[in-house]
Amino acid sequence: MSIYEEKQIGLLHSLQNANLTKFREAFLDLHPYDQASFFKELEKEEQELVFHFLAPEEIAELFEHLEMEDRDYQELFARLLPSYVADIFTHMSADDAADILNALNKEQAISYIALMSDEAASNVKALMDYEEDTAGSIMTLEYVSLYSHMTVSAAMSLLQMEAPNAETIYYIYVVDELKALVGVVSLRNLIISDDNTLIADIMNDSVYSVSVSQTREDAARKMRDYDFLALPVVDFQERLLGIITIDDIVDVLEEEASDDYSKFAAVSNMDYVDQHPFSAAKKRLPWLIILLFLGMFTASLIGRFEETLSKVSILAVFIPLIAGMAGNTGTQALAVAVRGIATGDLEKESKLKLIIREAGTGLITGGVCGILVTFVIYIWKGNIYLGLLVGASILGTLIVATIAGSIIPIVMNKLKIDPAVASGPFITTLNDIISILIYFGMATMFMRFLTS
Amino acid sequence: MSIYEEKQIGLLHSLQNANLTKFREAFLDLHPYDQASFFKELEKEEQELVFHFLAPEEIAELFEHLEMEDRDYQELFARLLPSYVADIFTHMSADDAADILNALNKEQAISYIALMSDEAASNVKALMDYEEDTAGSIMTLEYVSLYSHMTVSAAMSLLQMEAPNAETIYYIYVVDELKALVGVVSLRNLIISDDNTLIADIMNDSVYSVSVSQTREDAARKMRDYDFLALPVVDFQERLLGIITIDDIVDVLEEEASDDYSKFAAVSNMDYVDQHPFSAAKKRLPWLIILLFLGMFTASLIGRFEETLSKVSILAVFIPLIAGMAGNTGTQALAVAVRGIATGDLEKESKLKLIIREAGTGLITGGVCGILVTFVIYIWKGNIYLGLLVGASILGTLIVATIAGSIIPIVMNKLKIDPAVASGPFITTLNDIISILIYFGMATMFMRFLTS
Repeated sequence: MSIYEEKQIGLLHSLQNANLTKFREAFLDLHPYDQASFFKELEKEEQELVFHFLAPEEIAELFEHLEMEDRDYQELFARLLPSYVADIFTHMSADDAADILNALNKEQAISYIALMSDEAASNVKALMDYEEDTAGSIMTLEYVSLYSHMTVSAAMSLLQMEAPNAETIYYIYVVDELKALVGVVSLRNLIISDDNTLIADIMNDSVYSVSVSQTREDAARKMRDYDFLALPVVDFQERLLGIITIDDIVDVLEEEASDDYSKFAAVSNMDYVDQHPFSAAKKRLPWLIILLFLGMFTASLIGRFEETLSKVSILAVFIPLIAGMAGNTGTQALAVAVRGIATGDLEKESKLKLIIREAGTGLITGGVCGILVTFVIYIWKGNIYLGLLVGASILGTLIVATIAGSIIPIVMNKLKIDPAVASGPFITTLNDIISILIYFGMATMFMRFLTS
Repeated sequence: MSIYEEKQIGLLHSLQNANLTKFREAFLDLHPYDQASFFKELEKEEQELVFHFLAPEEIAELFEHLEMEDRDYQELFARLLPSYVADIFTHMSADDAADILNALNKEQAISYIALMSDEAASNVKALMDYEEDTAGSIMTLEYVSLYSHMTVSAAMSLLQMEAPNAETIYYIYVVDELKALVGVVSLRNLIISDDNTLIADIMNDSVYSVSVSQTREDAARKMRDYDFLALPVVDFQERLLGIITIDDIVDVLEEEASDDYSKFAAVSNMDYVDQHPFSAAKKRLPWLIILLFLGMFTASLIGRFEETLSKVSILAVFIPLIAGMAGNTGTQALAVAVRGIATGDLEKESKLKLIIREAGTGLITGGVCGILVTFVIYIWKGNIYLGLLVGASILGTLIVATIAGSIIPIVMNKLKIDPAVASGPFITTLNDIISILIYFGMATMFMRFLTS
């Protein structure tokens, strides 16, 4: 039970009784994330009260942890005084403020920015210009930078000044007169070096950075690999523009995961558990309809074998089995390849090596399953030919499906299409087609054995 | 192009020419992660050379970033002097050392631990006792703790002493005489407070912690939500045992993602892209065989309708379409529910609400797809009854499959089974069965319309 949960009840009580002092005391003592979770569960009227009880600067941090749907933000702010909202944005860290402002409609956003303090407004505008998914879009402008000719003591006193506002003061970046990034020094190094040492002597001059136009994922991967707490963002002239802090990266990695996951399940855009059926349906239908027509194509394919089917109707019985197995094995191969691309492992490996590997895997799994199914059907139906037909089809489809499952994402990646999109359903449909062609093709060929 | 890549060529060259000084200079200048990536790509003989050129303490950090298969570690260390290996472990941070030692076989591990320095050995042993996946298993013992009655200046000088060894010095935890956790103070606060202030006056006494027996995911979620850089790990008496740092959490989140992902694709244990076909097949076969028998069950189910099929063989044509649509929509619903559970969103929402929501979504998507398919088949086959039959089946299956997709993971979660395991193929098989029962059930009922 989190500290927040313990306090929640009393907090709600003092809010509902409009006990201002008691509420403020308890509320301001909470971690902003807890403030946000508390706020999120309140009724509209209760939320209004919270705004009455707290000043914009007191509630700003809450909004850095509040994650709502775009339209909820619009509704919420529409109920408040524009100047009050603007003050909230002024006191938020620029990157979080920019995110929320991007969620509002253009006019709304502009009107708030106009009311913000000049410095905050210009910071936010700078960040709002960056494309979503770029390193620039998640960087913060509240950072401390030093010159290499400063002494440790000078640096420390600068830090003590900046500490309250800076997003982090644990990595400090060193720039030259042109703001070009020349090094990095950690607070750890600063406090163990003596006052008169020059920053130049203790800074690490092989500093890693990310270009403002690179993707958030590039930044995330770099920080993960190197265990950085912050990463500097530079322009094409190596000038320091801002920094990305680890907490933003954690969120990126989380989103990435949900993202791959939702694409894998062909939910074009993962809908939240708390959404309305209509909006959920709207998000899923496009995929389902595409898949519906792919399915119709598969159906028409089977239609071509209707004669074979009418002669040996038992064949139909094994369609889902064969198609299903193809789908499953294809999905397995796909998951490995997609994940390999996502984590970057595959870049180091030769693609050809993977495909050959998968072919081998398909052969083995196909062989085992094929033999197994042949026996089971022979025992069940007492028809060895039928058993052999299904078994051979399983072998064939598993090999093809496994190879397809590894080739498709690699090709997609080459074509700069997110391989995760190819996943699940699509590969399944493709494998339906492959498996049906193999199955009925062979069935038609060996008809005489089956009808005998 | 990373700094590492630029240096790599020269580095390899000086290694192959056994240019000790040149190699050491360049190598020791690299970030441990780059050292690890370089090392990983070397031939066995070249790796031997690296060990000849570097002392254990110089290579220890490399191993904190080296991620290899268990057996590769065993082979690698088997080629080295036990005392040399033990020295490496002595100089590694205890948690990383424990991870690698756990990857070795028991005898090997014990022999190394026996040769380690007493302090390092006892630390490692302490950590190796914790269950995998627990907070205890990823915590580090290299942390700094203070007493609340210390002054800031005393604290600072302690930090300056501990800084070289501590995993992080940016969050410092405050304990009482019994080592019970009573507060936390950030280095940020320390440097802005003046020397004679008491820690008690600047520390935050509502400190969040995780119990040693809680899961890594609990710790990860907490640190993500609250943007912590470190989280203290305590025993049942609130005594401070160690801390978890954000870099470990980033790895946990990454693993989690791959994990969900691989389970989703029913790769029991995600195999790496660089694995041998046999080991890959071994990991996938168990699932495929389970699914094979599930598929056989589905087949036997269709078998019961063989009479219907022999009368109207066209029915077989639409089996994959209907089963496929059921599978897809079920997977969509499942993904939302599984992800909702993984991110914890669902805990806040009422489960019933989600299921009702999904029922609504199923009704809408089913309705749209059903009507669509009815028309398409009517136009294609000129048989309105067939169209209606397939359309109605789609409607029915989509509703049931969507609800099933949301109920199954919730139930599994209640039963403490990881819902991600239920994903993909399993739900598909279930939906195959549902859809076939609905489809052929209705077909058999309305046979007279179809044969007319």
